[in-house]
Amino acid sequence: MARFKKITMLVGGVAMAALLAACGNIGSSTGGGTASTNSNQAGVQTTGQISKSEYSGVIKNGHYLTSNARGLTATTMNNTFNLTSFEGGLLNISKQFYDPANYIFQEGQYLSGSTLRSWLGRKSKNNPNGLNPKDNGKKDDSRNPIYVQSIEEQDFMQKNGDNLVLKGITIGIAMNAIDYYQKEQYGATFKQNISKAAMQNYGNDVAKQVVQRLRKTRGISSDLPIVVAMYVQAPTDNLSGGTFYASTQTKSSTIDNWNKLDVVNKVFPLIGASTKDFANNDSKSFQNFQSQVENFFPTVSDITAQAQYLDQKIQGEHVTITTQFYSQTEIISFTNFVAQVAPKFLPSGVPVDITINSANGIQAFLSRNSNDRNFESHVFTSY
Amino acid sequence: MARFKKITMLVGGVAMAALLAACGNIGSSTGGGTASTNSNQAGVQTTGQISKSEYSGVIKNGHYLTSNARGLTATTMNNTFNLTSFEGGLLNISKQFYDPANYIFQEGQYLSGSTLRSWLGRKSKNNPNGLNPKDNGKKDDSRNPIYVQSIEEQDFMQKNGDNLVLKGITIGIAMNAIDYYQKEQYGATFKQNISKAAMQNYGNDVAKQVVQRLRKTRGISSDLPIVVAMYVQAPTDNLSGGTFYASTQTKSSTIDNWNKLDVVNKVFPLIGASTKDFANNDSKSFQNFQSQVENFFPTVSDITAQAQYLDQKIQGEHVTITTQFYSQTEIISFTNFVAQVAPKFLPSGVPVDITINSANGIQAFLSRNSNDRNFESHVFTSY
Repeated sequence: MARFKKITMLVGGVAMAALLAACGNIGSSTGGGTASTNSNQAGVQTTGQISKSEYSGVIKNGHYLTSNARGLTATTMNNTFNLTSFEGGLLNISKQFYDPANYIFQEGQYLSGSTLRSWLGRKSKNNPNGLNPKDNGKKDDSRNPIYVQSIEEQDFMQKNGDNLVLKGITIGIAMNAIDYYQKEQYGATFKQNISKAAMQNYGNDVAKQVVQRLRKTRGISSDLPIVVAMYVQAPTDNLSGGTFYASTQTKSSTIDNWNKLDVVNKVFPLIGASTKDFANNDSKSFQNFQSQVENFFPTVSDITAQAQYLDQKIQGEHVTITTQFYSQTEIISFTNFVAQVAPKFLPSGVPVDITINSANGIQAFLSRNSNDRNFESHVFTSY
Repeated sequence: MARFKKITMLVGGVAMAALLAACGNIGSSTGGGTASTNSNQAGVQTTGQISKSEYSGVIKNGHYLTSNARGLTATTMNNTFNLTSFEGGLLNISKQFYDPANYIFQEGQYLSGSTLRSWLGRKSKNNPNGLNPKDNGKKDDSRNPIYVQSIEEQDFMQKNGDNLVLKGITIGIAMNAIDYYQKEQYGATFKQNISKAAMQNYGNDVAKQVVQRLRKTRGISSDLPIVVAMYVQAPTDNLSGGTFYASTQTKSSTIDNWNKLDVVNKVFPLIGASTKDFANNDSKSFQNFQSQVENFFPTVSDITAQAQYLDQKIQGEHVTITTQFYSQTEIISFTNFVAQVAPKFLPSGVPVDITINSANGIQAFLSRNSNDRNFESHVFTSY
């Protein structure tokens, strides 16, 4: 019986190794049951890449290696766009430093959930490592706000024989431009504005402390490249997330200089924008698209877009159309129509996607890569 | 002032015509203000095709021409999959008779909402045209059930100079295999099973009456091709919709013979299927896919698939994965992983799509056409 079980497991291990080996650019594999020289990395495999611009990820003992600190924030994240844009944007920044062709992505493994929880808390007797200022007891604009909303760690690995070795870390630090707080539990929510200068100064100081603490963390060498990227959260009622405003890479315990990032998100149609706004032409084009679409279909209730600019140059656009449909054929015709008008009005040379929703959720989806002229479309169907 | 307005309108008309003319394979256009010889078709344009397998649709006076009878059913549609699969499937049947390269699709314009409402009702003194049987007053299995749940009209047009001319009609008739009814308003719901033979006999009779009535409808000639497709609804608790079981085309007032359609929907993993089930191998492959995915990611809560078979040959698969994500990087890694294992386990040579959902809605989407080996993937992001 014991023997039978052992064989079954071995077959399982081989089958899995075979499966993973077949996954494109497979990373190093220690196999299901093979011993590893580094117990910390035993049974480590990678998912393989689906394209040269996407990272391979780490599989440990057959499972995707998640972070112990996943999804931690100082207060309730005030806008779901912030979460997506912070984490997705951080990965894009990482790609500039750690080429997906040469590095394997690992969810942060060096900062534990308990460590990050204490860092994101206020400094106090009980929490000497808190990166947010101590509570000064005030309940108005003279209070010490929560500056640091979230910290995200991303690890970048390379193969060394059978092991994966840490070759770089990226730390994202999400700062509040507005701190939302309650004066009493379950009470009304108040806003405390934080000036840009105060936020940036506080953030730079936090970044330095984080780097110093990381250098003392087991497994992180004194010259490991650490990228730090600073993010400012968008207000609760914004229809887009925040943006990264600075980044740097350090191979020591200090941060010598920051690269300022001029990233701006715009929501179209722009409300009350001046003709001098650098996004004004894109907004005008979007409004033409909007009126074509609204004119075509009687029940279109909402069309908006998020656009992102780097150095005032558009980087891409996410368009969302919400409308009521009465039949599947209406959805198909509408999607075909959108696919035809979109290339005329939406920005070219950058990725654009269009989500078509009804009250029942997503109905169709169109997208175009930077280099394409035509949109690929997909209507969600079922049997 | 009046003159100014006229010019503005003319410019508007020209701009719209120019826009539409630029839309791929543009159909006949009477322009914004040009007089038409057929007042019924004035200002008719088409959306143009996005591909040879998709219909161009009808735009009338600048708007998509919807049907007056959109979304009508005899009782509340008992399963949202039924609606999508009935209407989408009907369009696919139409494509076999009216090639999208040569015909333009128009939402049904000949059966009005009030006509269809009376047809879908029970026959009675007040409703002599009711296609469902008269109420015999019974409240148990001896009652006359509602056989006909929904009737859908699709029109297929061709250009003739400046006009669009009706060249064919498709009628879909959705039949109940189970009639859900209440004995008293707001009361409990009871089920009345309808035998396959009774349903088919009743359906054939209804189809004949519908064809006879269409022949008497203004604008429909005595020899216009009419395709009739018979659909049986899936039960309320089914995880897929119903299927078409027969179709025919007639150029007269009678229906001489039916083509039986052997279409079967399966939901994977099959529960308690015998090894003789023709879908058993596909279900096994799906279960391997399922265990790979569940093994990879700790919080996968649900993976199911709908597959459709014609003459016991698989036609395609819709896979739905529901899982909780804690970060955008988890979604990205998970999607990359799914893109790599899917080609190994999911059926090849037929279209397959995979929707990845969380409690917050769709997170990512993968699809593969019949002829491709690799899946295209898209992770929904925002700025």
